Amino acid sequence: MAESDQTVFDALCDHTRQTATLASIESVLGWDERTQMPSANAEYRAEQMTLLSGMIHQRNTDPRVGDWLAQLAESPLAAEPHSDTAATIRVLQRKFEKQKKLPQALVEELTRTAVMGQQTWQAAREKDDYAQFCPIVEKMFELKRQQADALGHDGCRYDALLDDFEPEESTENVDRVLRSLREELVPLVAAIAESSRRPPLELLKRRYPIETQQSFGREVATQIGFDFARGRLDESAHPFCNGLGPHDTRITTRYDEHFMPSALFGTMHEAGHGIYDQGLRTEWYGLPPGSYISLGIHESQSRMWENQVGRSEAFWRHFFPHAQRAFPEALADAARDEFYFAINNVEPSLIRVEADEATYNLHILIRFELELALIEGELKPADAPAAWNEKYREYLGIEPKNDAEGILQDIHWSFGAVGYFPTYSLGNLYAAQFFEKADEQLGGLADQFARGEFAPLRQWLQAQIHERGECYTAAELVREVTGDDLSHDALMRHLRGKLVPLYDLS
Amino acid sequence: MAESDQTVFDALCDHTRQTATLASIESVLGWDERTQMPSANAEYRAEQMTLLSGMIHQRNTDPRVGDWLAQLAESPLAAEPHSDTAATIRVLQRKFEKQKKLPQALVEELTRTAVMGQQTWQAAREKDDYAQFCPIVEKMFELKRQQADALGHDGCRYDALLDDFEPEESTENVDRVLRSLREELVPLVAAIAESSRRPPLELLKRRYPIETQQSFGREVATQIGFDFARGRLDESAHPFCNGLGPHDTRITTRYDEHFMPSALFGTMHEAGHGIYDQGLRTEWYGLPPGSYISLGIHESQSRMWENQVGRSEAFWRHFFPHAQRAFPEALADAARDEFYFAINNVEPSLIRVEADEATYNLHILIRFELELALIEGELKPADAPAAWNEKYREYLGIEPKNDAEGILQDIHWSFGAVGYFPTYSLGNLYAAQFFEKADEQLGGLADQFARGEFAPLRQWLQAQIHERGECYTAAELVREVTGDDLSHDALMRHLRGKLVPLYDLS
Repeated sequence: MAESDQTVFDALCDHTRQTATLASIESVLGWDERTQMPSANAEYRAEQMTLLSGMIHQRNTDPRVGDWLAQLAESPLAAEPHSDTAATIRVLQRKFEKQKKLPQALVEELTRTAVMGQQTWQAAREKDDYAQFCPIVEKMFELKRQQADALGHDGCRYDALLDDFEPEESTENVDRVLRSLREELVPLVAAIAESSRRPPLELLKRRYPIETQQSFGREVATQIGFDFARGRLDESAHPFCNGLGPHDTRITTRYDEHFMPSALFGTMHEAGHGIYDQGLRTEWYGLPPGSYISLGIHESQSRMWENQVGRSEAFWRHFFPHAQRAFPEALADAARDEFYFAINNVEPSLIRVEADEATYNLHILIRFELELALIEGELKPADAPAAWNEKYREYLGIEPKNDAEGILQDIHWSFGAVGYFPTYSLGNLYAAQFFEKADEQLGGLADQFARGEFAPLRQWLQAQIHERGECYTAAELVREVTGDDLSHDALMRHLRGKLVPLYDLS
Repeated sequence: MAESDQTVFDALCDHTRQTATLASIESVLGWDERTQMPSANAEYRAEQMTLLSGMIHQRNTDPRVGDWLAQLAESPLAAEPHSDTAATIRVLQRKFEKQKKLPQALVEELTRTAVMGQQTWQAAREKDDYAQFCPIVEKMFELKRQQADALGHDGCRYDALLDDFEPEESTENVDRVLRSLREELVPLVAAIAESSRRPPLELLKRRYPIETQQSFGREVATQIGFDFARGRLDESAHPFCNGLGPHDTRITTRYDEHFMPSALFGTMHEAGHGIYDQGLRTEWYGLPPGSYISLGIHESQSRMWENQVGRSEAFWRHFFPHAQRAFPEALADAARDEFYFAINNVEPSLIRVEADEATYNLHILIRFELELALIEGELKPADAPAAWNEKYREYLGIEPKNDAEGILQDIHWSFGAVGYFPTYSLGNLYAAQFFEKADEQLGGLADQFARGEFAPLRQWLQAQIHERGECYTAAELVREVTGDDLSHDALMRHLRGKLVPLYDLS
């Protein structure tokens, strides 16, 4: 007698959960490496990671998974599209097929090139020597083309690569939306550059003792809803959020005694990621209904808490008095509206990770346009630095003095993350769309923030987004939650609503 | 054509190394659990650990290991007894046979009972309720008897259990040496109790700011040779040392602002363990020539740095001025000889982990004698508390008021660690024997310590002990290094040499 669909479904889930347990162990190793491990142990840690990766890959491509999925394809369990069971079957089917299509030799070549690529990139950046990095770009984009062809596509290779980070999204759609965004954002940024109003940035560069920044950041993260009973906040060179288990979400930030925003907004950003992870359904941990949808949706949660909440006037109506008490040396004589203007400074700059809320998207656009041209063979790696600089002049009105502050600044291409960049801007777009809808449905978030009430927004996000897991694609989710498709309108409304009065634009 | 011995040996080593990599990942999880993890994640962490344990067990009992070892048994690679290859074959052969002999059902029953046992023990200790714990003791000792019988023995079940912690040691030998130690130690402790001299313990209970304790402990650990480029020092409720990789040895301690010795000697103790791990040959990491011999030998390294070094008069000739500068509030007006007397206080007490260098061994003797009687069925678990109290009266002249400060104080039996206790005292015995020999060969360690020179001792230990890995058994090593067999004489000489003048004994 054939096994029942439910028995097969349970076997598939058990297998997948156990693979997720191995992946969560990898996360423990990764977190430890970035926050605790003596650097002398780096080589051995890589061996530990490689061993686990191999085991995970083997489990992911286990032929039994294919058999189980084949039996479930026509099952009633797969019928209701947004049900937990159907989502499980749909997502695991997609992942299994992708894994199966990749030749082992290509996977190994990509891994080897990524390891070498990161080392080469680091050396090249230090020496401001793009020529040293260029062969890696050539090699990596060639391998990514092979990867895209192995996975299959309808003529657009970038589609197949984007799918690793933003599943089921299309290049055409992303291109259309980002282009629309660019057309409105470039003039807005240019108008701000011509405005005579300038925020008092020196306010942010006063002395903010690091221990106080730590306790203040922790307090803010707690108030917006990051659960420290199920998580941690630590320090690392590059801030990140990492899920190590259903009740173990760890975020990091970095501190600068003379620039307060980096740690605070870094903490809020990572706490936003963490609140998403903590809002997932733990009983589905390691399975699609208990997993995040895409990098874009994940980023929408971090950006919303960082920008829509943390850089709002209402937020500081609540928190500014606290901040003045915490940092009397820096803020006792400061006015709230001056401080608010300073943290919303918009100014074209060269380094993506230091960019403000508005110009950030132009940094992303440039990278997206370049990697699209590189993958399609329309741009040669040797010509990429010139193209990079040209686009900075065109979109931001400034130009890097050298490649270290230009095309060499990001690690992504060196390890093959092609298709990753646009998810940062998708996050900003989704964040603005979700936030508008939450504001409408919750009846005026600003007043709530001013009273220090953040739970309604967090609970709304949990019910609308987190608890849905992967039962919706990103596109389906934004439609389900907001009634609209992905669009640049909400983000532009958000930016104009804030920046037009601050910079006294017409 | 049959594969060459070398090829088979290499396959065996590759397999074993990879298993060790999994075990090292388990260590990362364990360290993280005890120092970093939010407690809400405990259940999931147990799942991660169980998954890894299962994989490790499967690899350890892989039939190919048996085939490889069978081919190598008569190989020239196994001929020279203390060679790296012969040690590898001998140790892996012993471990494989032990693993194979244990029925899977018994292993699972032991694991289940250990989990339940620890929970029950914790609850029983909190409520001072031995009756609640007694069924666990019965069950666990019954399972350990089954384990001993499955493993095989020459009439003494304890032999088979001791082997898990002190491989190839015999109960008869341990019993003989500990009995000799007891016969001399009990009168010494009694004489001290009757002495009219008492150290000024209040010196140690003054205020020692914790941050300064941290930096001072770190300084001491560095000077005695713990390599912080390949290790860390953190805080945890129960101090421990854990090896997470060939270049990643982590130790912990705990701090009490009003009792300075616990953190400092705890740090030196764990640093001693760490120095052993850091002194192993990294090219043999995960294999017998790069592994520690036994818990007793490991403990000899921690005890030596803690006691023979850290509680010596010469050590404080060097460090006391530093300590006075670091802790002016506590030590500015203190005399070095008073301080030295205080840290060498000997006084019968009820709690093992707080006991001094001399009486500690009597705590161990009591546990060893009781678990031996329990495993042989000569003592019933229900009668164990009375036997415990009787022995404390006889050996230490004091008696617990209740079982919480008596038989319920240790976790060991609750998770089946029967045969573990004696290794603590074996460590003290080995430490004294090794130290005497080092002192003789290095020409007066006291003068070196007084000058702050600790490298000669550390290097001697590395060459004589650490770098030998498991190429010698503990018994062989002590004979090879000191020319003598395991004996209580050196420890008694060490204790009398220090305590007779301090307490003005005849």
